[in-house]
Amino acid sequence: MQWTCPLPLRDYPHVILGHGGGGKLSADLVEHLILPALAGQDKLSLADSTVLPAIGSRIAISTDSYVVRPLFFPGGNIGQLAVHGTVNDLAMSGAVPRYLSVGLILEEGLEMASLAAILRSMGEAAREAGVAIVAGDTKVVGRGQADGIFINTSGVGEVADGVKIGPCEARAGDVVLLSGTIGDHGMAIMSVREGIAFDSPIVSDCASLHTLVQAMLGTPAGAGAVHVLRDPTRGGVAAALHEIARSSVVGIHLDEAAIPVEGAVQAACELLGLDPLHIANEGKLLAIVAAEAADAVLEAMYRHPLGKRAVRIGTITDRNPGRVTARTGIGGTRIITMPLGEELPRIC
Amino acid sequence: MQWTCPLPLRDYPHVILGHGGGGKLSADLVEHLILPALAGQDKLSLADSTVLPAIGSRIAISTDSYVVRPLFFPGGNIGQLAVHGTVNDLAMSGAVPRYLSVGLILEEGLEMASLAAILRSMGEAAREAGVAIVAGDTKVVGRGQADGIFINTSGVGEVADGVKIGPCEARAGDVVLLSGTIGDHGMAIMSVREGIAFDSPIVSDCASLHTLVQAMLGTPAGAGAVHVLRDPTRGGVAAALHEIARSSVVGIHLDEAAIPVEGAVQAACELLGLDPLHIANEGKLLAIVAAEAADAVLEAMYRHPLGKRAVRIGTITDRNPGRVTARTGIGGTRIITMPLGEELPRIC
Repeated sequence: MQWTCPLPLRDYPHVILGHGGGGKLSADLVEHLILPALAGQDKLSLADSTVLPAIGSRIAISTDSYVVRPLFFPGGNIGQLAVHGTVNDLAMSGAVPRYLSVGLILEEGLEMASLAAILRSMGEAAREAGVAIVAGDTKVVGRGQADGIFINTSGVGEVADGVKIGPCEARAGDVVLLSGTIGDHGMAIMSVREGIAFDSPIVSDCASLHTLVQAMLGTPAGAGAVHVLRDPTRGGVAAALHEIARSSVVGIHLDEAAIPVEGAVQAACELLGLDPLHIANEGKLLAIVAAEAADAVLEAMYRHPLGKRAVRIGTITDRNPGRVTARTGIGGTRIITMPLGEELPRIC
Repeated sequence: MQWTCPLPLRDYPHVILGHGGGGKLSADLVEHLILPALAGQDKLSLADSTVLPAIGSRIAISTDSYVVRPLFFPGGNIGQLAVHGTVNDLAMSGAVPRYLSVGLILEEGLEMASLAAILRSMGEAAREAGVAIVAGDTKVVGRGQADGIFINTSGVGEVADGVKIGPCEARAGDVVLLSGTIGDHGMAIMSVREGIAFDSPIVSDCASLHTLVQAMLGTPAGAGAVHVLRDPTRGGVAAALHEIARSSVVGIHLDEAAIPVEGAVQAACELLGLDPLHIANEGKLLAIVAAEAADAVLEAMYRHPLGKRAVRIGTITDRNPGRVTARTGIGGTRIITMPLGEELPRIC
């Protein structure tokens, strides 16, 4: 990494406990490394909390902590993941993300160059997404008391009138849409961890989805036609659909052959004995929409760079409430199980 | 601890990796332990983000991560600290705290009973403070990759018209007020860690200060007379005043003899070679107010349970901008230094 640690931090190639102590070292880290890395985020001050203009419409609030390992992976790093992930959580309630806070927990010994690279990625991702980082906090714990860096991001977004999106809103007859291939993020992490190499490396799909959501809500059928949005992160498509089936008390029936999976992801899943439906994604969404609006919403997705491979993958039924089933590639029906626990620890 | 782990978690006396995996174990933990412990927080759902009514006035946003060790200490635990701390950060901008999010990072092996006790404390503290916990996230990392539990809380508050409080607002002639004794939280933690025992144990001052702040803003002089508010946590009164002196480009001159310190805290500081001005507090505030309003604000503080020992401790000057000095007990003047780094790691 070609990077020069700014003065007066140059004597500290690694984070030390004092960088979290609230004294001069803390102030130096914030002023000379954190704020410049998140540059453009001029609202981020040293105050304990930041006062912002009234929003006017309903607000959405979301929080997520990121503990992914390794910190840098094909297609991203923990910093941009922490921005995309919370932007997406807000987007899944139909909100336009406005503000993010950043809470850093650093392990003593973390390389200052890694910290700088992670924070620069956060700043870039936030600027691209049009969200302002407005509050921050940094803690340092001793060696062996954390693993490099953990990041919490919390977000506040604006929800327009007419938007009513939530996990309880699916209705029998609705259609299930998926914005693209599944399993890319989880298998990008796993292929690094397990040392699996393919001709074309698996790259995380890590991306902010809110502009895709806004395009979907802007179709002539209107925001009211989109009933549920969900980014299938931990637990994958299977866990996301199970939660919806349970919350809305409906059945979900998938056409498994319609679900796009990259060849390398499929191969890696077979090698490791994993079901792509259980694997985490960080730049994909599931949408449950009124049947009559499905074509228009799909059209809007195709026209967005993150929805080019959008597909219709299933329907909502009033049979088998709480259950997720699929027509398999060979014409049978299988029950899609909720993953039990942690097939892939620390995936996000 | 008299506590029975709820079904279906009873087979898990300790947190395992699967409790953070996004599958059935995660859902069980959230539904049967986290939500009931935070009971009364009926807005907390399983959705990625929560949609709330418009606020109408300016909003304040704040974030803080808590890594205190030990998790349970005289006067509190990490859970209530995480509520009080972020409520206080919001209060220090003059906001009325409304919403909190909770991000948990758990270490595999954490006792389920400890987790339940911590979360119950959070729920109680939030209800007492009148804030709603509206969003949550739980991650689990492997043994040795964190230290028990880390908690991030982020908050959103409402800022009334006429409130203009911030670290840059101190003016020469203003008066510095302090709401009570200093050093209690930091020395409560240290006395446990160092095994120091006193006749009367040192108890953390951990408390939510927003109602005290509202009482101070409600004096006849009005909210406009309160220029700066600050809770002196990490780095203590010294670091807090240094930041204000620097941000407002003013000097701060203290009357050291006026600053109240409990006898046991003073004794512990002397034993460990620490300056009480550098020790963290979690239920005290510094206020910098217009001189003509100081008596009325002090009166309002006296009448509040958390301000009974409020005192005037100094003045803002236009000499020595950026510097904090004190008249010592024996009549001399000393420079109050900014603490360099971490005298007391993981104090909050």
